[in-house]
Amino acid sequence: MPDQRWDLKRLQRLDRKKVREELGLQLLEGRRVVAEAIDAGMVSQVFCLEEAVAHWSEVSGAVPVQPVEAHALSRLADVKTPQEVVAVGPLPRLLPAPELLQEHKRIVVLDGLQDPGNVGAIARTALAFGCSAILALPGTADLTSPKVLRASAGALLRLSLGVGTSAVSFDSCDHVVALPVVRGGEDIRGLPVPSCYALILGNEGGGASVRPSNAVEVTIPMPGPVESLNVAAACAVILSRWA
Amino acid sequence: MPDQRWDLKRLQRLDRKKVREELGLQLLEGRRVVAEAIDAGMVSQVFCLEEAVAHWSEVSGAVPVQPVEAHALSRLADVKTPQEVVAVGPLPRLLPAPELLQEHKRIVVLDGLQDPGNVGAIARTALAFGCSAILALPGTADLTSPKVLRASAGALLRLSLGVGTSAVSFDSCDHVVALPVVRGGEDIRGLPVPSCYALILGNEGGGASVRPSNAVEVTIPMPGPVESLNVAAACAVILSRWA
Repeated sequence: MPDQRWDLKRLQRLDRKKVREELGLQLLEGRRVVAEAIDAGMVSQVFCLEEAVAHWSEVSGAVPVQPVEAHALSRLADVKTPQEVVAVGPLPRLLPAPELLQEHKRIVVLDGLQDPGNVGAIARTALAFGCSAILALPGTADLTSPKVLRASAGALLRLSLGVGTSAVSFDSCDHVVALPVVRGGEDIRGLPVPSCYALILGNEGGGASVRPSNAVEVTIPMPGPVESLNVAAACAVILSRWA
Repeated sequence: MPDQRWDLKRLQRLDRKKVREELGLQLLEGRRVVAEAIDAGMVSQVFCLEEAVAHWSEVSGAVPVQPVEAHALSRLADVKTPQEVVAVGPLPRLLPAPELLQEHKRIVVLDGLQDPGNVGAIARTALAFGCSAILALPGTADLTSPKVLRASAGALLRLSLGVGTSAVSFDSCDHVVALPVVRGGEDIRGLPVPSCYALILGNEGGGASVRPSNAVEVTIPMPGPVESLNVAAACAVILSRWA
């Protein structure tokens, strides 16, 4: 592994997708995400404050730990006031949609979800309720961005990830393809729990752009005077019923 | 009404709690929140771009609409790239906890929730599923902050709001007092739906600080390998079952 790989100046740019792809690395920050990533075998190098080296050396096993000054840690991190540790690890392999659909029974499909907080929260919820994969369609926040990873509390590191185009086909899969709609879909409370599903979550403002012919529209009954639920809340309600 | 009230320079500081309290006003931004606020009778003055005056004059009825330049709108708004409109309206009255508990059957209690995004998302979910009030305990993000209002998509304008101390008592109320815990509580799926509840949601990291003697611990079963759900996701799962 060339030394240049740990050039801190270059690692500082890992908040950019282009740099992540050039270096083949993603940034992991905060105690929780770094610990999750070590556990998942997704860390190449840990950077932490001098006083935390002993702790992280113990936690990280064979993964090297390098002490850095507080100001260098701040520059590496995406957040303004980083915790004591950041790490870098290999970018996850993004599977093509057909492969992901073939290999995974429970998938969340993100169709143009732009908000990193929503994408991260959905990943965390998906993992909690037994999903094993996330498929990102065009317009979705990058699944390897530090903001998304942070919002997922590291859950993204334990999910298989895939990318597809808006021409993605669900025709040949056995999944129940579910598309939440605000009104007029089948009441989520009455639906049989599918053992195999692809839950399509659309853009925060505009909804889903894909309309698979075999999609089942589902609706969460809401007695209160709101137009719609937040997409991450809708995801939690549906997946908790299908866990 | 003194002219000084619409001094734009002063209104620019409405992102600060102290200024909101001094002026007795809150900032409403974005088309959706402003429209909700007008509908809820919570707007004193609309500020919008010249080209949007006709639209907002029609929408706002008797509420005055003042055209402002784009740069002035930007300075008024809390977001970097505001939509065409911001407004100001009276601060909502915050009820003392005992009064809120007496008047409302379905309440969410926020016990030190710091993240404005979580607080806003919870308010939106609460309104959707039939809650009518939010009670904020110490350490909770201010319910009148622009960030919280925005994340609630205006839902906070339709909820009754209250504040309490950490010595708040639920003893004399008829509510089912529910406290989510990660493990060991009663399975949320098996609980009878309460007609009258106070759902206590604790701090993102540390959990709830209040432990009412009549609290029922409830747990959302999670088959996946995560430590916990995001608090807003947990709220959505529970309240959707109690809608």
